Amino acid sequence: MSLKKKLYIIVFYTNTRAGRFFDQALLWAILISILTVLLESVESLNERHGALFEGVEWFFTLLFTFEYILRIYISPKPSNYIFSFWGVIDFLAAIPLYVSLFYPGAQFLFVIRFLRFLRVFRVMKLARFTSEAKALSVALRSSMYKITIFFTSILILVLLLGTLMYVVEGRGDGFDSIPESIYWAIITITTVGYGDLVPQTSLGKFISSVVMIIGYAIIAVPTGIVTSEMSKNRKESTGCLKCGNPNPDDARYCNKCGEKI
Amino acid sequence: MSLKKKLYIIVFYTNTRAGRFFDQALLWAILISILTVLLESVESLNERHGALFEGVEWFFTLLFTFEYILRIYISPKPSNYIFSFWGVIDFLAAIPLYVSLFYPGAQFLFVIRFLRFLRVFRVMKLARFTSEAKALSVALRSSMYKITIFFTSILILVLLLGTLMYVVEGRGDGFDSIPESIYWAIITITTVGYGDLVPQTSLGKFISSVVMIIGYAIIAVPTGIVTSEMSKNRKESTGCLKCGNPNPDDARYCNKCGEKI
Amino acid sequence: MSLKKKLYIIVFYTNTRAGRFFDQALLWAILISILTVLLESVESLNERHGALFEGVEWFFTLLFTFEYILRIYISPKPSNYIFSFWGVIDFLAAIPLYVSLFYPGAQFLFVIRFLRFLRVFRVMKLARFTSEAKALSVALRSSMYKITIFFTSILILVLLLGTLMYVVEGRGDGFDSIPESIYWAIITITTVGYGDLVPQTSLGKFISSVVMIIGYAIIAVPTGIVTSEMSKNRKESTGCLKCGNPNPDDARYCNKCGEKI
Amino acid sequence: MSLKKKLYIIVFYTNTRAGRFFDQALLWAILISILTVLLESVESLNERHGALFEGVEWFFTLLFTFEYILRIYISPKPSNYIFSFWGVIDFLAAIPLYVSLFYPGAQFLFVIRFLRFLRVFRVMKLARFTSEAKALSVALRSSMYKITIFFTSILILVLLLGTLMYVVEGRGDGFDSIPESIYWAIITITTVGYGDLVPQTSLGKFISSVVMIIGYAIIAVPTGIVTSEMSKNRKESTGCLKCGNPNPDDARYCNKCGEKI
Repeated sequence: MSLKKKLYIIVFYTNTRAGRFFDQALLWAILISILTVLLESVESLNERHGALFEGVEWFFTLLFTFEYILRIYISPKPSNYIFSFWGVIDFLAAIPLYVSLFYPGAQFLFVIRFLRFLRVFRVMKLARFTSEAKALSVALRSSMYKITIFFTSILILVLLLGTLMYVVEGRGDGFDSIPESIYWAIITITTVGYGDLVPQTSLGKFISSVVMIIGYAIIAVPTGIVTSEMSKNRKESTGCLKCGNPNPDDARYCNKCGEKI
Repeated sequence: MSLKKKLYIIVFYTNTRAGRFFDQALLWAILISILTVLLESVESLNERHGALFEGVEWFFTLLFTFEYILRIYISPKPSNYIFSFWGVIDFLAAIPLYVSLFYPGAQFLFVIRFLRFLRVFRVMKLARFTSEAKALSVALRSSMYKITIFFTSILILVLLLGTLMYVVEGRGDGFDSIPESIYWAIITITTVGYGDLVPQTSLGKFISSVVMIIGYAIIAVPTGIVTSEMSKNRKESTGCLKCGNPNPDDARYCNKCGEKI
Repeated sequence: MSLKKKLYIIVFYTNTRAGRFFDQALLWAILISILTVLLESVESLNERHGALFEGVEWFFTLLFTFEYILRIYISPKPSNYIFSFWGVIDFLAAIPLYVSLFYPGAQFLFVIRFLRFLRVFRVMKLARFTSEAKALSVALRSSMYKITIFFTSILILVLLLGTLMYVVEGRGDGFDSIPESIYWAIITITTVGYGDLVPQTSLGKFISSVVMIIGYAIIAVPTGIVTSEMSKNRKESTGCLKCGNPNPDDARYCNKCGEKI
Repeated sequence: MSLKKKLYIIVFYTNTRAGRFFDQALLWAILISILTVLLESVESLNERHGALFEGVEWFFTLLFTFEYILRIYISPKPSNYIFSFWGVIDFLAAIPLYVSLFYPGAQFLFVIRFLRFLRVFRVMKLARFTSEAKALSVALRSSMYKITIFFTSILILVLLLGTLMYVVEGRGDGFDSIPESIYWAIITITTVGYGDLVPQTSLGKFISSVVMIIGYAIIAVPTGIVTSEMSKNRKESTGCLKCGNPNPDDARYCNKCGEKI
């Protein structure tokens, strides 16, 4: 096996010891580079340790650039990698500092580097990630239609309530426009309650109270949807995939054909 | 088939290609006209683009007026349409601008136009909307009685807590009247927590803490009601509608009579 | 049947037409008298309509006094009524205004009148109230033990977090004492978030973030408890009470012995 | 049985009458000593009753010191106790006042005393604590993996949203750094909503609205996970432990071998 092939297996796969080590080292590098960007944005820290932060940034930028070029070099078909989802993200994660040389305000491009952190799921995949994440996403997908109906209803409700409050409260106390009032309705119905926009009139307070209680009630709906979907998926997924025998929930092997569940 | 009949099918039904196109175009028209009202209410935008907004408003008002007259004209029995739910909403959605010519403050009538947006559900009906929405509403309706008990209890609780806090906190810090204190109790128990009314005394803070923890606990109740109702409905709905055989959850055809589930 | 006996059935039972009418009239009287107390506590309204409110108050006080005396008079064994739960509440609901003649600040005794409103459940009992309310209370009672463990854990958590924040934030920004900090911890963990007490230091903000995410996660626990308890109770309650045959969920008659479920 | 052995059973076990009494007395002592620390931290109370608090503190410190020495003395193998979880906590709970003689600021060490309160679970264990707590912890542990995925996703989401808001809102309105903006994102997505950091720009408010609605939706996910896990565990736990027969949910004795469930 050529060095290129060996490196390919280490860098792109996680089923060897070296591959796992590479991926874990990469995650730490991503984590530290993200942390640097976070701390750099704190003015007081940046004034004191600005040079250090810049050094760390350049170190990781060069590292990620090298990694990106390596990945291209060792790929059997480089174009496949370059235009894949991860290829684009790896490229975008490497360039922010180069871009910011020309456009000083481009710091926010570092945000892309967070997406690289999604790799953490690839490392976790080794364990039982696939099946669990699939169960979650199946539950969410199969209840997507119910959730769409739910959110469309919420949206219409919020539009109506926002306009109502705009009429009731009137300008002058923050309810200066319908979009502003809709913002208030969303804050209230989701029970966030910042308190930057609060009703001043008695009627407004009464409407608020009704909205809060409505919000309290309807939070039960998405929960009910997801929960019943999950319970259902659990039952389906424990059925034997080979012979379809509905085994009891705690079965690990199909009690009919011995297939592992 | 006469032109009138053809138009009737396009305008009132959604099962032809032209009918679907008409409904989708209508939804966009409603959406844009709503957006215009939203943006018009923002003072800074209205000052700059007031004339544009007014133009758009008149365009859609004339459009909706034309649509309303068309619907009356092509209906086999116009009075059926005029006094139907949608007929009344279509009428009310068309007139706000005319009314505001005489009563300048009548802008808020535009709120009725939002209700037209409920048509979005009619278009979605084409897909699997009916069954899903029915499942949701069945779950909500069959748990309506439990929910009524729950909300009556909440209401009495909130009345008692509000009065208690009015006595404890006394006037001067926002707890100026019992209704005001009830408003505080609702804000707290629903975990909205605006922060415009907060207890100042130690005893008041202690009572608040208890209320918050109570609110934290009882949010589990409506969720439990809706979820268990939904799980139940799912099981019932998977039973065969023809022969009533309780098939397993993942069955797509009744295993007794072959009816599709 | 003597008049006394007839009155007894009307006043104490709800299974006759006159009894239902009496109870509904009583509920309206309670509701209006509560509303009067609520509105009376609003200073601006009290200044304008003080005499009216006082009149209404006296009217209902005399009405409730008369009702109380009537109930004693028509009871076969008056002492049974007087010392029963409802007897004590009826007495306490009648006296506030008399007491406030001697102690002007005793208005808050009106709060007891709210408890009379619990009678609303007795009227609703006619329908299917008993079984539904029993299902709710069975679910809550059988999960009481799990809920106790849950709340004891929350309490210890809140004590620890409160003390931690007291040490971290120090005096001067509202975290002036441990009880005050515990109050903050409860506000945060229940996701109420008034905003009257917010962390000022970076470490405090970091701890807050962790607390919020913990609070977000543990709200799932009571919901899970109640929901799974309710689903269980539903299944148990659909089993035949006569022969114990576990019928399918949608059965209305036991498919073994024909008993109604 | 020697006195030492008798004391050992009383102090370390709870299955005798004297042992239960000892544990309950200890819980009250812990509770009062915690309360004293709480009240002592309130400046106004400390000024008035400082001497009393100090006296109570010294009383309990001596009591706990004596208890600690007693536990060491009566243990068959003292080193086993000293280095056990409870041994370390008992030691740490006894020393704060001694430490604060030398380091006056060490009051916060009292926080450790709260941990002793976890003993409350040992006393409750007598009843049905073990099985219930096990059910809870099994449900949490078996859904730990799903929860980890969920929280990693939340974390990445919060990082992205925080950075986005930092770019959108800019410095000057509280969004002064990325960590500060992440703090805001956590406050918003968990629906806590302090209101100390709120968006000022229109775009910021729009993003906030989206974040709130996202937060509203995803709160359904952990609830769904825990609930479906709990329902599953209930079913598993009702299976016969002896012969494994999956009995119906309402069975109290295995219908195959008669084992109590």
